[in-house]
Amino acid sequence: MDWLQHPIPQPDQRYKLTAIKRQEQLTKPAGSLGDLEDLAIRLAALQATNMPSVDKVWISIFAADHGIANAGVSAFPQAVTAEMVKNFVHGGAAISVLAKQHQAHLEIVDVGVASSLTELNIIHQKIALGTANFLTQPAMTEKQLLLALQAGKDAVTRALADNSDLFIAGDMGIANTSSATAIACRLLNINAQHLTGAGTGLDHSGIRHKVKIIQQALNKHASAGDLPLSVLQHFGGFEIAALTGAYLAAAQQRTPILVDGFICSVAALIATRINADIKPWLIFAHKSQEQGHQLILQALQAKALLNLNMRLGEASGAAVAIPLLRSACALHKQMATFAQAQVSDSNSKQTKSL
Amino acid sequence: MDWLQHPIPQPDQRYKLTAIKRQEQLTKPAGSLGDLEDLAIRLAALQATNMPSVDKVWISIFAADHGIANAGVSAFPQAVTAEMVKNFVHGGAAISVLAKQHQAHLEIVDVGVASSLTELNIIHQKIALGTANFLTQPAMTEKQLLLALQAGKDAVTRALADNSDLFIAGDMGIANTSSATAIACRLLNINAQHLTGAGTGLDHSGIRHKVKIIQQALNKHASAGDLPLSVLQHFGGFEIAALTGAYLAAAQQRTPILVDGFICSVAALIATRINADIKPWLIFAHKSQEQGHQLILQALQAKALLNLNMRLGEASGAAVAIPLLRSACALHKQMATFAQAQVSDSNSKQTKSL
Repeated sequence: MDWLQHPIPQPDQRYKLTAIKRQEQLTKPAGSLGDLEDLAIRLAALQATNMPSVDKVWISIFAADHGIANAGVSAFPQAVTAEMVKNFVHGGAAISVLAKQHQAHLEIVDVGVASSLTELNIIHQKIALGTANFLTQPAMTEKQLLLALQAGKDAVTRALADNSDLFIAGDMGIANTSSATAIACRLLNINAQHLTGAGTGLDHSGIRHKVKIIQQALNKHASAGDLPLSVLQHFGGFEIAALTGAYLAAAQQRTPILVDGFICSVAALIATRINADIKPWLIFAHKSQEQGHQLILQALQAKALLNLNMRLGEASGAAVAIPLLRSACALHKQMATFAQAQVSDSNSKQTKSL
Repeated sequence: MDWLQHPIPQPDQRYKLTAIKRQEQLTKPAGSLGDLEDLAIRLAALQATNMPSVDKVWISIFAADHGIANAGVSAFPQAVTAEMVKNFVHGGAAISVLAKQHQAHLEIVDVGVASSLTELNIIHQKIALGTANFLTQPAMTEKQLLLALQAGKDAVTRALADNSDLFIAGDMGIANTSSATAIACRLLNINAQHLTGAGTGLDHSGIRHKVKIIQQALNKHASAGDLPLSVLQHFGGFEIAALTGAYLAAAQQRTPILVDGFICSVAALIATRINADIKPWLIFAHKSQEQGHQLILQALQAKALLNLNMRLGEASGAAVAIPLLRSACALHKQMATFAQAQVSDSNSKQTKSL
């Protein structure tokens, strides 16, 4: 798996400077478009272009089940993972609706759902019928880990073949906040109680139980160390490994990434531990209501675009943010400059003309 | 001007309850779409429908000049108001770009620009060539105030004739943060130094000067009292009065309002002082970077959807938020229920079927 270590390019500083200069010339007080200016400048540098665009958006949802679900850490039964995959395909899920609204390409990748989905029109890369229960053994074998990372890379290959200019990934997997929380606890050296949240909707006693289970698993695998791939193998879900592989592959191939909520941010954290050069490629869409997300964003020194108290996963928060990126690009490209519009600049007392 | 006191209806509680129930049945953990669920429920109650929509969005930009501009309170010369109106018409301004991106109807209303714009394809309701300088006299006469309020109402009449299901208004007027700040200071009984911000981009000494001017004007008109229409007449801009009239008229006619930034929120504050029943009709799009906006939002007990550090006015922040409302409506309408999709609900251990 040499590809994991392939270099990630830096954003192009020349296009960044050109974009900054253009923003100063557009008919608005300097800086008055706030984060939308930063987004346009950032996308220009990432896409190495004067006029960035996010017209073609690709969304891959990675679905997998988790052995830890048997420990009663989710408010929903494990069957929901497969049921929701069908719901994605039939257009009834939140991400189905949002992808349609924003004309984004949506694909579903089965990397380890615990039942047969062969009849569905999805990408079939099932690695196993769910991970092992990480309370008693590593969640996956090293071979399985590499297959899951590769599944993420494969999704990026499809996205680029379709000329996508923005890559979004999402997750589906009952109990995957437990997996992601355990990973983040180990990577950030934080106890489970500080990171564990309600997931799909646990009550207080449910959260207490989840904390206990996650801490027990962290103790069990204390000797596994904190190298990112080892942590991913011990606590990961197949979908979290796929997200990690996808993010690394997208950045290696100069594709901006719009990161969804808690699960995706943990995958982004793993990716930054594998190669810190990925950081500029990660645009964080929203701050999730899931309790641990703020800590993950802080660890990544990231500021999210939106804060809408969402906590659904399946790339829904990233999809909701797509129009903001499109607005940033449209404003950058289509607004007139002071000179073009013959509008007086600040500090001038008369109209500039060409 | 009896119409200002016409009753504003309450949101329809039956549709609110139906919408709440539907949100609980959609295929997601309850509450996991966060603010988007609240938005859908709120719009259902406002529009009195099971399936709210914001497909047809109307944007009126009210433009006017301010006598107080002569006191050197803006980083830009007064000529920019007229220049930007031309820029709106020619499609080069931020709001032109955003309205096009979101297929919203955009109209520009001249309620008092300080130069002739008769050649432009806009709505001509010029009341005067700018307000008087409120350092020395009331900004407008009572008759002018009523004309400006009426211009706002007229915009709503056009919006409803076009079957708009969401009303947005915006402002253009060099020095209008000074006008809005003075109004808010008087209505909230706050000194100018606590509310005054950089507007289009004053430096520290510019802000100090602006504070001094606004406080001087507040002292000059201390005897004018704090009744909303009197405050508006003494310190207002024609565009701020038009915004106020538009908001009241829209709410009277059951049309949800998406409020832009600082100037628009001050108009919303005036409107709530005229008739507090308007509150449920006001959806606040974004928190502006303009210093005083947070205090206005607090006074209105409002939480803004976005916080993107924007401070441009011209309805740009509201326009950027349009897709969030559309996402909320699309999710509410198009997502499958647990029963429809045969997805297991929380706490159930087996799949529900119809």
